[in-house]
Amino acid sequence: MDEKALVAALRARGETVAAAESLTAGLVCATLARVPGASAVLRGGLVVYATELKTRLAGVDPELLAEHGAVYPEVAAQLAAGARERCGATWGLGLTGVAGPAAQDGVAPGTVHVGLDGPGTRTVRTLALSGDRDLIRTESVRAAFALLGEHLA
Amino acid sequence: MDEKALVAALRARGETVAAAESLTAGLVCATLARVPGASAVLRGGLVVYATELKTRLAGVDPELLAEHGAVYPEVAAQLAAGARERCGATWGLGLTGVAGPAAQDGVAPGTVHVGLDGPGTRTVRTLALSGDRDLIRTESVRAAFALLGEHLA
Repeated sequence: MDEKALVAALRARGETVAAAESLTAGLVCATLARVPGASAVLRGGLVVYATELKTRLAGVDPELLAEHGAVYPEVAAQLAAGARERCGATWGLGLTGVAGPAAQDGVAPGTVHVGLDGPGTRTVRTLALSGDRDLIRTESVRAAFALLGEHLA
Repeated sequence: MDEKALVAALRARGETVAAAESLTAGLVCATLARVPGASAVLRGGLVVYATELKTRLAGVDPELLAEHGAVYPEVAAQLAAGARERCGATWGLGLTGVAGPAAQDGVAPGTVHVGLDGPGTRTVRTLALSGDRDLIRTESVRAAFALLGEHLA
């Protein structure tokens, strides 16, 4: 489901979305906002590039970050929940991963966790992407849209 | 100054940046994050698409919003200050405007205010852009980079 279909599906349901983004750093929200009329469904989001902001802005447990690092499935789940709650949206997406070119905390580039939090839903999908930095980030956005799209279908 | 030059300039100064974005909805942060090594200078940001989030996430005065609407120079200044403070950055950028295609609160598409808040600096630049929705948003990002770049030069 691309951004246009996602905006239409959310609009038809009278639902909204927000995202807390690390490696994509705002690209999920910015891509949704390309669609005219996105304001009916896009609440906003949190760009949590610095690890400390994952806690400060999105409420991720600092002990979880200290123990497992920022690229960890439960971090994506907590980012999704934080985005949903702090932005007052029906659905929250959370993205954390390694865009590369270098590994991060021993995690290989292309490792991405996408979290979704919504009514009766709390799930994380893990991706192993290949490609350059731009491609890993755009494929992460696509995966986030796909995950939400499946729950709206 | 493009995103690569901006990341290099901030890095050389040991300074950081954050953004609170309305019409660009994360595109300022996402564009900076395209640069490998951006994590040294990009703290994060706030996507404040819904008007209410401009207050909730970035601390914009709700009376200002009620009186003048969201597309107003002082709103851009307060977004910049909010991004800087809440993300703990040296520099904060704030962007509000009308991407179109329709006017918003009687303000024409292409009207954009870009705020910058930093050490001894609080300024707003107003743009009258033409073009489609994508172009207005990418030109707004460019203008934000230019404004910050001038203060780093």
